[in-house]
Formats: sequence, C-alpha cells, structure tokens
Amino acid sequence: MSRDTSSRPPSRSTSPSAIWGGRFDTGPADAMVEINTSVDVDCRMLPQDIAASKAHCNMLVRQGVIAESDGQAIIAGLDRIGEEAADGHFTMSRSLEDVHMNVEARLGEIIGEPAGRLHTARSRNDQVATDFRLWIRDAIDGLDAALKTFQAVLLDKADAHADWIMPGFTHLQSAQPVTLGHHLLAYVEMVARDRDRLADCRRRLSQCPLGAAALAGTSFPVDRWQTAAALGFLEPAANSLDAVSDRDFALEFLAAGAILAVHLSRLGEEIVIWCSHPFRFLALSDAFSTGSSIMPQKRNPDGAELVRAKAGRVIGDLVGLLTVIKGLPLAYAKDLQEDKEPVFDAADALRLSVAALTGMISTGSFDRLRMESQAAAGHPTATDLADWLVRVKKLPFRRAHHIAGAAVKAADARGCALDALPLAAYREIDAAIDEDVYSVLGIAESVASRTSYGGTAPERVREAIAAARLRYLI
Amino acid sequence: MSRDTSSRPPSRSTSPSAIWGGRFDTGPADAMVEINTSVDVDCRMLPQDIAASKAHCNMLVRQGVIAESDGQAIIAGLDRIGEEAADGHFTMSRSLEDVHMNVEARLGEIIGEPAGRLHTARSRNDQVATDFRLWIRDAIDGLDAALKTFQAVLLDKADAHADWIMPGFTHLQSAQPVTLGHHLLAYVEMVARDRDRLADCRRRLSQCPLGAAALAGTSFPVDRWQTAAALGFLEPAANSLDAVSDRDFALEFLAAGAILAVHLSRLGEEIVIWCSHPFRFLALSDAFSTGSSIMPQKRNPDGAELVRAKAGRVIGDLVGLLTVIKGLPLAYAKDLQEDKEPVFDAADALRLSVAALTGMISTGSFDRLRMESQAAAGHPTATDLADWLVRVKKLPFRRAHHIAGAAVKAADARGCALDALPLAAYREIDAAIDEDVYSVLGIAESVASRTSYGGTAPERVREAIAAARLRYLI
Amino acid sequence: MSRDTSSRPPSRSTSPSAIWGGRFDTGPADAMVEINTSVDVDCRMLPQDIAASKAHCNMLVRQGVIAESDGQAIIAGLDRIGEEAADGHFTMSRSLEDVHMNVEARLGEIIGEPAGRLHTARSRNDQVATDFRLWIRDAIDGLDAALKTFQAVLLDKADAHADWIMPGFTHLQSAQPVTLGHHLLAYVEMVARDRDRLADCRRRLSQCPLGAAALAGTSFPVDRWQTAAALGFLEPAANSLDAVSDRDFALEFLAAGAILAVHLSRLGEEIVIWCSHPFRFLALSDAFSTGSSIMPQKRNPDGAELVRAKAGRVIGDLVGLLTVIKGLPLAYAKDLQEDKEPVFDAADALRLSVAALTGMISTGSFDRLRMESQAAAGHPTATDLADWLVRVKKLPFRRAHHIAGAAVKAADARGCALDALPLAAYREIDAAIDEDVYSVLGIAESVASRTSYGGTAPERVREAIAAARLRYLI
Amino acid sequence: MSRDTSSRPPSRSTSPSAIWGGRFDTGPADAMVEINTSVDVDCRMLPQDIAASKAHCNMLVRQGVIAESDGQAIIAGLDRIGEEAADGHFTMSRSLEDVHMNVEARLGEIIGEPAGRLHTARSRNDQVATDFRLWIRDAIDGLDAALKTFQAVLLDKADAHADWIMPGFTHLQSAQPVTLGHHLLAYVEMVARDRDRLADCRRRLSQCPLGAAALAGTSFPVDRWQTAAALGFLEPAANSLDAVSDRDFALEFLAAGAILAVHLSRLGEEIVIWCSHPFRFLALSDAFSTGSSIMPQKRNPDGAELVRAKAGRVIGDLVGLLTVIKGLPLAYAKDLQEDKEPVFDAADALRLSVAALTGMISTGSFDRLRMESQAAAGHPTATDLADWLVRVKKLPFRRAHHIAGAAVKAADARGCALDALPLAAYREIDAAIDEDVYSVLGIAESVASRTSYGGTAPERVREAIAAARLRYLI
Repeated sequence: MSRDTSSRPPSRSTSPSAIWGGRFDTGPADAMVEINTSVDVDCRMLPQDIAASKAHCNMLVRQGVIAESDGQAIIAGLDRIGEEAADGHFTMSRSLEDVHMNVEARLGEIIGEPAGRLHTARSRNDQVATDFRLWIRDAIDGLDAALKTFQAVLLDKADAHADWIMPGFTHLQSAQPVTLGHHLLAYVEMVARDRDRLADCRRRLSQCPLGAAALAGTSFPVDRWQTAAALGFLEPAANSLDAVSDRDFALEFLAAGAILAVHLSRLGEEIVIWCSHPFRFLALSDAFSTGSSIMPQKRNPDGAELVRAKAGRVIGDLVGLLTVIKGLPLAYAKDLQEDKEPVFDAADALRLSVAALTGMISTGSFDRLRMESQAAAGHPTATDLADWLVRVKKLPFRRAHHIAGAAVKAADARGCALDALPLAAYREIDAAIDEDVYSVLGIAESVASRTSYGGTAPERVREAIAAARLRYLI
Repeated sequence: MSRDTSSRPPSRSTSPSAIWGGRFDTGPADAMVEINTSVDVDCRMLPQDIAASKAHCNMLVRQGVIAESDGQAIIAGLDRIGEEAADGHFTMSRSLEDVHMNVEARLGEIIGEPAGRLHTARSRNDQVATDFRLWIRDAIDGLDAALKTFQAVLLDKADAHADWIMPGFTHLQSAQPVTLGHHLLAYVEMVARDRDRLADCRRRLSQCPLGAAALAGTSFPVDRWQTAAALGFLEPAANSLDAVSDRDFALEFLAAGAILAVHLSRLGEEIVIWCSHPFRFLALSDAFSTGSSIMPQKRNPDGAELVRAKAGRVIGDLVGLLTVIKGLPLAYAKDLQEDKEPVFDAADALRLSVAALTGMISTGSFDRLRMESQAAAGHPTATDLADWLVRVKKLPFRRAHHIAGAAVKAADARGCALDALPLAAYREIDAAIDEDVYSVLGIAESVASRTSYGGTAPERVREAIAAARLRYLI
Repeated sequence: MSRDTSSRPPSRSTSPSAIWGGRFDTGPADAMVEINTSVDVDCRMLPQDIAASKAHCNMLVRQGVIAESDGQAIIAGLDRIGEEAADGHFTMSRSLEDVHMNVEARLGEIIGEPAGRLHTARSRNDQVATDFRLWIRDAIDGLDAALKTFQAVLLDKADAHADWIMPGFTHLQSAQPVTLGHHLLAYVEMVARDRDRLADCRRRLSQCPLGAAALAGTSFPVDRWQTAAALGFLEPAANSLDAVSDRDFALEFLAAGAILAVHLSRLGEEIVIWCSHPFRFLALSDAFSTGSSIMPQKRNPDGAELVRAKAGRVIGDLVGLLTVIKGLPLAYAKDLQEDKEPVFDAADALRLSVAALTGMISTGSFDRLRMESQAAAGHPTATDLADWLVRVKKLPFRRAHHIAGAAVKAADARGCALDALPLAAYREIDAAIDEDVYSVLGIAESVASRTSYGGTAPERVREAIAAARLRYLI
Repeated sequence: MSRDTSSRPPSRSTSPSAIWGGRFDTGPADAMVEINTSVDVDCRMLPQDIAASKAHCNMLVRQGVIAESDGQAIIAGLDRIGEEAADGHFTMSRSLEDVHMNVEARLGEIIGEPAGRLHTARSRNDQVATDFRLWIRDAIDGLDAALKTFQAVLLDKADAHADWIMPGFTHLQSAQPVTLGHHLLAYVEMVARDRDRLADCRRRLSQCPLGAAALAGTSFPVDRWQTAAALGFLEPAANSLDAVSDRDFALEFLAAGAILAVHLSRLGEEIVIWCSHPFRFLALSDAFSTGSSIMPQKRNPDGAELVRAKAGRVIGDLVGLLTVIKGLPLAYAKDLQEDKEPVFDAADALRLSVAALTGMISTGSFDRLRMESQAAAGHPTATDLADWLVRVKKLPFRRAHHIAGAAVKAADARGCALDALPLAAYREIDAAIDEDVYSVLGIAESVASRTSYGGTAPERVREAIAAARLRYLI
C-alpha cells in the first residue's frame, strides 16, 4: 500500500465534499482539510476495514437488507482492493479524509452503484470503532508472540547462568549475592504479567460495535451477533451510545503498554549500567553495539538506551489519549480521531523494544569472574551473619543485626572482608561467636542457603525455570 | 490513629538511627530526615501492617523459627497496637521513619525482647510490598462496592426515564433522538468495564511477597504458602527479586483508576452542560448545588466540576509513578517510597468522585419537555428519511443520503422541520417520495424504530436495564 | 527533499558501519538498525544542518585549521546539497542513520577527500544540539508570526462586537452579562503571554553548542564566538558537558507549547459549546464545518474539536520528553535521540491549531439576538442589585448579598426576571428599596456600569482593543 | 496555624451555607461538603490572603467606597488574625469551605458589622487568583535563594576539584577524560537556566487580578493600580475575564519546576551510580546516608534516590493541572480549585530536593585515585590520537578516525592501553606515525589540551568558575 503524502495540502476545494456535502455551499479551507484529514494515519487499518465491511455485507445479505447479487459484487470488489493494497497499487487520497472513504470510493470505481449499498445500517462511527478494535487485537497478538519469544530467550539465558553469582543490588549498593539466572527470572515474571494484562485487554475489547450505527442503533433488521461472530468477537456491544464513544480498549492497551515499556526500560537501564566500564558485567554483541563518529574506541549500548527512551514515549502516548477523552460528552466527537496515532506509535515502539532486547540478551556475553568479584565486595553476607546469630545463637533479630553492623565496621577498619576477619575480632564484638560462623560468610554459601520458594539458591532457580517454561511457553 | 505532623522537622539528631545505625558515626541531617520520612503517608497502612506481621509471626511459630511463647506475646502486642490506633491513642513518630518501624518500636515497649524476633526472615522490602498490596486490595473492594451502588442508581434512573426523549449528540450537535434511559445505560457499561479492570488488577496482585526478604529469599525454613493463604493471596510471588521491586499492582490500579476517572469526568462534563441555562436538561438538588460569594442568583454544579478535575489529578498520579519506576534497576530502590502517595491520593479522589456523582444522579431532576423540544430541533430524523429511501424505495444509501441532505436544505430555507416540509417540496427533490415518508419523520417514531440490539427503542432500553441488573447487580 | 521510507528495514548488513565501524567485526542486527535509525525524523533538520556546517567550516578556515581551498570546496558542496534538497533530488538513506551522516556522505560523493575534513573539531553531539536549537528557533519564529495574526483577527472581531452582550459564565452558569468583544480579548491576553514565553525560550536557547565537540571541548584552536555569531546566537554555551547533554530548550518549547495548546483548547471547547443547538451563539462558515457520512443534516465543528484534541497530544509530547531526560547521567546518551519527534509533532500540532482557530474566528458569525436573550436569563444582575444596596443604601456587602438572594428567590417564584419584579415585592424583602433600583437591573445598564480598568463596559473594551493593538501588533 | 482535619466530614448540614445560601432550601450532602472543601489545602495561603485583603481595604477607603473608620477596624482585625495564626491559635473550619471564608468569618467575630464591607467590589474569584499569585511569588523567591546557595556549593566543590580527572561518559561509556570541576559546572549552568526561567515566571505573573471581581469588573470606583502597587505587582491584569480564569502562572511555575526537577534527578542518578561499589567515585557523609533494617553493611544513597523520585512527582503535578485546565470554557470553573495542591506539592518537593542535594554535595567525598584510574580505562584518548593525525599529519578527520579505531583494536588485542602500544604496532597501522604520538596519549595531557572556551582544561575550568561566581552569585 502506498499513500499520497505530499506535504502541501490541496488548495481550497471549489466544491464541497462528495461524501457529506449535500447542504454545503462551499468547500473546506486548506487549514481545515489539513487538520481534518486522517488518512495518513488510519491507512494502516485497511485490512481491518475490509474485513469488517465484508462481515457487514454478508450479514446484510443474509438478513435480506441488500440483494445477494449486490453482496457478491461488494465482496469481490473489497477483495480486489485488498489485493491492490498488497501489491502496493492502492493509492489513498487525502481529499477523501480517511481510509473508510477511500475504500468506499475505490469500491464505487470497481463495481459501480452497488457500492453505495454497503453503508446501509452503519455509520463511520461504528465502523471505525470496529476497525480499531480489530487492529489493536492484531497488535496484541503480535506483541504476545514476541513477548513469549523474549521469555524463552530469558529462560535459556537464565538456565545457562543459573549458578553464576552476581551482586544483588538494592539502591545500587551490593545487598546480598544472587545468581544471574535468578535475576533474569525477575523479568520473566514481569513479562508474564504484561502478557496477562494484554490478554485481559484483548478479552475486554471483544465486543463488536457494528450495528450501533451513528449512536442510536438502526431500524434495519440487522443481526449484530452474526457480525460479531464473523469477526471473532465474543458479543455485540450492549449499548449503542457507548459503542461509538468508548475508547477504553485503546486506553487499556496503552496502559498495559506503558507498564510493559517501564519493565523493558528497567532492563535497558541495567544493560547500560552493566556495560559501563566500572561494572563490565556484560558485553553486547557487535550486532547490538554502536560506535562513535568521533571516538573510535566506543562500543555504545545505544539499543538499550533507546529502549529506555521508548518508555517515555509510550507514557506520553497514554497521557495524550487520556487527556483527550477526559473532557468529552457522549457520543462521538472528532477529538476521538486523535486516538490512533498514539496507539500505533506505542505499538511500534513496543515491538521494536522487545525485538531489540531479545537480541541483546540472546547475543550478549556475561563476565562470570567480574560479576563474582563484585558480588564479594561490600560485605554482602552481613545478613547471613545476623541470621546465623538468630538461628544458631537464638538472638533476637534486632540484636543480631546490631552485632553484624559492628562486624562490618571492624572489617572495614582492617580493610578486609567479613570471612577474613579473625575470630578474635568477632569475639571482641560478641563472645558467643565461634568458628562455625565462617560457614555462612562465603558468597557461594550465602547463595546456596537461600532456599525459600522463589529464592536465589541455584536449585530453586532451576526449579523456577522449569516451572516457568511449563507455565508460560506452552 | 493520630500522627505527629508538626511541620518543623526534628533538629539534627546527635545519634544515628536505632534501627540501622550500627556502623554510622553521626546521625542524619535535618534535610535528610525530612526527605526520608514516610510515616505521614504510610501511617494509613497500619491495619495492613499489623495483619501481615501477625501472619508472618504465626508462620514462624509453626515452622519452629521462633518460640510459641514469643509468638503469643507478639500477636498480643500487635493486637494491642491495633486497638490503640482504633482508639486514637497510637501516635507515630517521624524520627522512626515509617509505619513499620513505629509498630516495631511500640511492640518493643509493650512486650520487650521478643519484639526483636518478629523481623526474622523478612525485610522491610517484602513487608512494605505486602502491606501495600493488601491496602490496594481493600481499596479495590471499597471502590467496587461504591461502583455497584452507582450502577444501581444509574439503572433506577434509566428505568424511570426509559422513554424520555432527548437529543443524541455527536460533536455536541443534535444527531439522532435517543432516550435518557439509553444514555444513562452507556455509563452503566463503562462502569462495568471499570469494575472488571479492577477485578483483574485484584486477581493479579494476589501474589504474596512475604518471604522474599531483602531481595534474595531467606535461609530460614519459612513456608510462603502459609503466609500467602493467611492473608488471602492466591500464591507466593515466584521470584524474590521481582517480589520486592515490582509495583505493577500500584501502576495497574492507577491505570484502571485513570480510565475510571475519565468516565466519571465525561459524566461530570455532561452534567455541567446539562445544567447550563441554554440547555437546562437537568436541575441538581440543593444538596449538590453551591452558591456564589458575590452572585446571589447562582446554583453551581461545583461537584460535577470537581469530578472532572479529579481526573486530571489521577492522570497526574499515574504519570508520576510510571515516571518514577521507569528508570530503576533491580531490586528495591528508595524511589519506590514515593509509590504510596499517588495511590492514596487517587483512591481518595475516586471514592469522592463516585460518591458525589451517585448523589447528583440520584437526587437530580431532568426536564422532559426541555429535552424533547431540543431533540426535535436540527432535523434529527434526516437519517430516518435516508433509511426510508433505502428500505422502501430501494435506493443505494449514498444516493439516499444526498436526497436527505437536499431535504434538510429545503426545510432550512423554509425555516421548518422535516415533518412540516410539504410533500410537493419532497417531490421536487425526488419524485419517488410519497405520503408514507411522514411515518418516519417524527422523533418518537425515530426512537421507536431503532430496535437493533443495544439500540435506543424504549423496549430495547428496558430489556437492557433488566439484563444489566442481572449481570452487574447480583 | 524526499526520503527513503520503505517500511522494510535493510536486511542484516554484512559489513559494519562505514562511519564508526573501525573496530567492529560484524554489522548491526536488523532490529538494531531499525531502532537506531533516526533519519526518517531528523531529515527535517537538513537546512539547519547545512547552515551549521557552513558556519563551522568558515571558522575552521579562518582559524587555519583547514585549508581555504578545502573550505571553499566544502561550502560549495553543502550549497549544492541544499539545492538538491530544495529540488527534491536529495534522497536520504536509512543505513546512514541520520541526516548528519547523509549530508557528509553526499558531500564526499560531490567533493571527495576534503569532505572528510569538515568533521574536524566537532562531534555529532555538538552538531545535533546546534541543529536542533536552530530548528526550534525557526519554529518559534513561525509560531510567533501565526500567533500575531491570530491576535489581529481576535482584535478585529472584538472591535466589531465590542458592545454585543452575551452571558458571562462561571461554572457554565450565567453569572453577569459581558460583551463578546470583552470575551475575545481574554484570548488576546492569553496569546500575549504565550508569545512572551516563546520569546523567553528563544532568548534562552541562544547559546551555541558548537565547539563542545563530544563532551570535553577540543584541542583545535576553534573560535566559538565566531560560529555562535555566524548562526545568530548570543554566545557560545559556557560548559561543554552541559552543551551536549542539555535539552532544556526542547523541554521549554514543549512546556510553552503545552500551555499555548491549553489556551487554544479552551477556545475550541467554547466554540463547540457555542455551536451546539441549545446555545447557537456561533455559526461556523462552510469552510470550517464538516458533515456526516450518515446524518445529512449535520454541521459539525470538527476543527474546534481537533484543536481540543491537539492539546492532549502536546501534553503527551512534553511528558514523554521530560520522562526520557529525567533519568540520564551526563553527558550525551542515545535516549536523547528521541527528543525530536515530540518537538516536531508539537510544532506541527500548534501550527495547525492556530491556523484553524484563526480561520474559524475570522469567518464565523455570531448571533446577537440569541446571545443577548441568553444573557438576560438567570438573573445575571443580582450582583448589580447587591452592589446598589451597598453603594446607595450603604449596607454591608454581606447583607446586601443576602437581600439579593431573597429577590432572586421571589422572582423565581413568580417566574419573572429581576427587572420585572414589582417594587412591592422588593419592599417586602427590604423596606429601604425604592424605584431607583430598576436603574441597575437591566443587562445593558449592568454591562455599561462595569467601568473598572479591564472591565466589560464597551468604552473600556474599546480602549483595551486600542491598547492591545499598540502593545501586541506593532 | 492549626486546622481542623478530622477525617470524618461533618454530618449533613440542616441549614444552607451562611455565605451563599440565600435561596437554597436545604444544605449540602456530606459527599458534597467533602469534595467541595478546600480549606485543608488553601489554609497555606493565609498570609497572602491577609495581605491582599489589607491592600483591597486601604484602596476602598482611599476611593471613598468604605468609611475610614470601617477600614481601620478591618485592618486591625486582619492584623489580629495574622497574629493568632502565627501563634497557632487560629483554627479553620471545614464547614466554611476555604481560607477566605474562614478569615472573613473570624473578622466578623472580631470587629462585627464592618467585616461585611470588606468584600465590596471583589469576589472570591479575583481574591483567590491574587492570593495564589502572591504565594507562588514567595515560593519562587525562596526557591531562587536555595538554588543560589546550591550553585555556591557546586562552585566551591568544583574549585577544590578543578583538576581532578574523571571519565567523561557518553552512553555511560568512557568517552574522554574530563575533570570533576568541569562536570560539576554543568549543573551550575543548568541551575542558572532554572533560576532564569523562574525569574521569567515571576515577572509574568506580576499582573494583579484584584478588581476583576467575579469576571466582569466592577461598578465601584476602584483604583486597580493602587492595589497592584501595594502588593508589589507591576500592573493590574488587563482583562477581567482572563484575570479570574487564567492559571498560566501556576502552569509555568510547574513547568519550570519540572525542568528543574529533571536536572536535580540527573544529579541524583549520577550520585547513585557514583556511590555504587563498582564505581565508588563518591562517598556520601553519614548525615546523608541511610542503613538497612536487615543488611547491616549497607550505606544507601536514599536521599539521591528520593530526589530522582520527586521529579516523577513534579511531572505528575504538571500533567494533572494541564489536564484540568485544558477543557475549561471561560471564566472561572470549580475545576480550578484543584490548582493549589499540585503547586504546593511541587514547591515542597523542589525545596526538599535542593536542600538534600546541597547537603550531599557539600558533605560528600570524592575518591581521586578511583576516578583517575577509571578515566584511564577504555582508551579515552583515541580521539586525541585521531586529532593528532589531523593536526600534525594533516589527514582528513574521517581517515584519522579509522586509524585510531584500528589502534584501539590492536591495543585491545594486546590487553594494553593506547599509550603502552609500541610504536611498531602503530606503524603497522599507518607508517606516518612517529614517537611524537605519545605526547597526546596520556589522560592528563588530553585534559590539558581541551582549551577551547567551555572545555575541560583545568585553566578553562578555573576561569569558568570565576565567571560563574560573578554571573550567578552576586
């Protein structure tokens, strides 16, 4: 499909619109044409528009509203338009405002008078609401598949690194050692919720507006269940005013998309930090690195940065549409024409972001020694010491916590790690401490000990990977 | 519950925090205390904090981590704190940072040393995540009940006005006549989706973080299913890093709340317009009207305007939290402390908005004559004329639409309505038109004819009311 | 200028980028190319890029960094690219990433080796920051001119309707009568502040980044004042790290644009309401009205609705960019590549909105009788009655306000206006009231009496128009 | 000042409001009272309300509108209320709606009947707009002073570290070495623009609404220049409708605040990263560090994280208010009551953030060796090599860039730095390279060579510090 996107608007039309100009004396001003046209944007809904028109036409024939021969002509004409578009031969015109009018005009060229019967018992209001729902449903399906692939890549990577130790950060300060596999699984969970939210959105949008007509329903004997079923919807929308003015499905898609984008941005942020020289936990592949026009040594994680930035964009898309709809009385208002661009923009941004992160994770290399050496820094087993005092020495946690704090101070004073602090030094802090304490002060022991459900012990991580594969990938 | 909210922060502490100060030499600066304190906000989670601590304590006892006698002392102490708070005798201190530390400090005062054993095998990170999920779950339950009441009020009002004719607007221009009952049902549908979204959010947040501890899980033999079940969650959260750094439930609540607020704002906008003198479709009751400090004649729909404004606020809350979380690497970061205020603010705003609209709708009076006279203006049956030409005279819709446009122009030229335009004038436009045309030109006939499912015909509206009562109110 | 916007990205490059690929073994992945490319967007900065390169080249020659002959070749080559673009013969390639690399590559084709000397002592980081400032400066100039025209149209319309009485609304309730001229002047003031804000933004962005190079400055003997002056900037940016990572000018443009968009949206909202049948204060011209595909009688104010919607869009653009930049450490990060689309989108939306509103106001017709009859409804002179009691009868305002409230109640009970309420009825409320009261109860008298500076009395309105013409249009 | 903040609203009033209830039969519903009350928020404007009322009263006396004795009583009464508030003895009541009515009611208690004369020739609409402008003006003054102090602290810190070398990052990848002083100066510039924006906002808000009354001006012989001057405004607002419905000053304050917050957040992000163990460029003082309830070893940069989070909050505040105002027709609407909370919230967040960052920077310690060693990593002088090839060997930059890339690759292959790569290896890449090349490969040499204006050479940094002190601190 190509489109006529010359940046100059057509000069002032001398005659009013062929579609609705019946009682207008003069045509629209240039500025009006330019602000009013949506075809540059909504042309992307062509496949959905053709599908919805075919369903509507078939129903009209079965209900006896239009003749079977007219119906056959319409279906054939619509199919031909679909083929022309697939071949890149269907050029839309801005003066016809939108994709719907372009399709109808072309249909008229192809089949003549019967084209005028297609718009019986419908309006652009229910038509565009139907097309848009179908488009978002398709976008959700595409996104869900991409997210499933992303989960599979994360799970494979987690599997291969189930026992690679890295610092577990809070406040970007070393808190307790964890494994890389465990860390990556956190994203598998986030994505699982994202897919779940998108699935809810998909289910909730499955109410077909067709037959609501302009806003009040129609007096033609339509069968709304028939069109709903033909298009794969669960049911027709229950109230015609709501059906044409509701854009919840777009808002909900953007909201789910914004939360997804926030997740992707968090991973992007981590990749940028992990690739930084003082960290160097991760090296991206050449395929996902970029250089500099001036600094020849640079390997930049541009892709991860762009994923971060896309989140800002999707949040902006959501805000824009919420703000647009917030002030609208029922039913349809032209403000709603601005609903598509943010949705298309967000869908594109999300698709690209998921693809880029999937590639970065699957082709990147982690540095085991580097991560492990950093995991040992900063006394990350101080909690293990405190827990040992509680478990073995039966101290209340609060007192144990205080003793461990004193041990950290003593170790810092000597410039050594907790497992290198002599027993004498420990006993100076609390006389009850004995040799056994060293059994909990190593990072490998620390990681291995966290065997609670969902914890970072490698055996738990491997169980979690197996469970996630069953739960999310089948 | 009362709180210590003196606007002056405590002067510079001479000693470090009792909670985590083990290795600090000096206390925090005033500015640090002020920016760091959250108790003014998170004090609202006291009931949830007590409930979660009790569940954690009971589990520790059953797993043999703490002694039964200690457990009993802790439970009794927590209960007493709950009672003190209910009686308004529990004063929280800003120097103890947050609700969790205030509870633990008070518990220590009441029961002494065993209080220090409660924090075994948990961290504030999993504790606050649990409390916050519980708070939002409660907020959803309260909001759902209020929304159900709102639907009931809308349905009652719709029932009483199922056949009151009003203009159906698109672009705030009279499009086709509808009934007030039909119009109000649109909001019943919107609210139904809102409740559905909140229910999805409630289900999805039903994963218990307790036992994730700081971020890595714990080496104590905890049973996370036990605490999850005791608190009414479906299951424990599957990944400990995710459990402490995930705030999807807050974002999803705000997103669902923002869409709900947009719906409420749309009704608010309609009420403001309907109450305006040129419309005067609606008169609010005295109980929901306000006056002016300078203009004695005013009856202002302030409540409806405030409902509109609250939507801006909830959108701002959502944006703020999305923006905060967008850039955070795993796991917990202090930025997340800013998660509660937007959620509390939005929950309050939504509660108030639903209550105000419920009151406005249930006590307001609509003006039947005024609405009907406006419904007749602006040729709202032009579509019926076009449809008649299609149905009876078998014209293609596009030609019929053009003829109807010409009829509108002719009626305007004479300054009359379509049903007052003489047959001769119609025949001048198209000779095929006959007397029968007048059967579709009245607004009552128009409304009655829209019998498609979800349409505005009073019989359809009454069926829809009955169906909605079954679907949403039981 | 045309661009290569085929929706399919180039398949995986077999060789690394010619620009920065020196140490890369393989080329970027498809997903990486697609997310990384910005030329589809930044191609709009071609004129600014050429201007900045010419200024840089001239400075390099004068400072002896490159030879005069090389400089001449470069300038000639850049001019030729500018001409090619003007003729639509310059096709940019996505594989060259951005406009800067496309220009440099084409320059190399035209002039050979000297092209490689242009990038001396600069980086894409200072280059893009310079280009983008220039683009925004141009956009501000265009917008300012459009806003001045809009003010001129508003002032002409205000002049022609300086004494046309309409209801002054608060809460969309009739408050006190005002004149249409007075009402339109409110927008002249709003736009004046908008122009002032844009001028401040323009002044503040007038610091030239050129010479900051990648982030640290350069060791070449550049003269940054020379390039700054050549490009019309006030001075070079004072800190090189700030110069390449600052996007305040974009944020400030978007913020000023969002406030402007809010103003335009308020007028859009008023136009939609004024065109609604129960109001019908305003009839838009055919040139700014649209029809319906199904309802032949409709004249819709689509343009005004789209102006309202554009405000949501610009707010979204602002939010998106604030969110992107919020989390970035210094200096340049690729996230900043996402700065241009929101700015371009907002600039386009604002340009269209101003043009559409200018057209709607200049060609629309107000209905004097209709506005005046509505201005008389709802006791809008009740405040005048209270003021009269204060001024003439020396009552405290609060008591006067109460008496006026009682008069409104009495008039409502009789179904009459305040100036038709008999003197006896007034005396029943307060015996001090005499015949003279009727001198303040008419709406024309009310309007004429508000002679305070900035008030609605026609003489004040005419003075305000004259003053505004002097202040804003010269 | 204290306020009545019982969370339970007053039960349903049996009598209508004393202020505007003249024609109401029954009082407001509980939900209406709760949503309508603003005193919990606007009580913060008490000082501004008193100041504005005094200015208004003095003008009324001088214009002969009220008697001098009444005026004296009013002024004395207002002064007493101010003293009561300062002493904490002025309790506001929620049933009186807002601060304005609370003051007027208290004034009536103190001075009796003359209190009722204060509201002559004004309305709450112009009163609140005036108070709010005064409040924001005060907030700007406070913020400006805090920002100036912050700049002074940054400049002192920059001075002490003018030649401490650190990595200059782009994409968080080592790009070129810079000095810490140079880096900190970037924030001095950002803050300078912030102060400039706030100053513009302050100038633009300096138009006094008093005398606009409800919306139309007043018939009393007020002198609006007198009140404007008494309150320190430049002039009265030029249009009364605009004066009461304009909130540009609040939006502009929030927009400038959001950009400021973004700057502060960027520094917060850097502090978090710099404090992370793999970096450890910076150690915060104890006064600005926090610990963990579970991990005794932690020193968390909570303050810096909260500063980051506050940016999300301020962005949310801005979005909320833009969204609220976007849809409002003129003039005043109750939606505008929601203008204060976001502004107060943002002002508080900004005040706290500036104070916290000022403390963190002034008391934190940077680690010179650590920064310098990281500055040497990652071949940050590759650009210097390329520049040397251009400057000394006269190569075109593009070819020089390619050679430098090859040198980086060769150095990586040997695991050495560029200044440790043998000459033979360089000559293998390009035979023209000679011994002199080593003069540009050290990081100290690199830094010293960037002597362009605004560059990182220590002499330039010291000049920039001196210039900034003159420009910003005097």
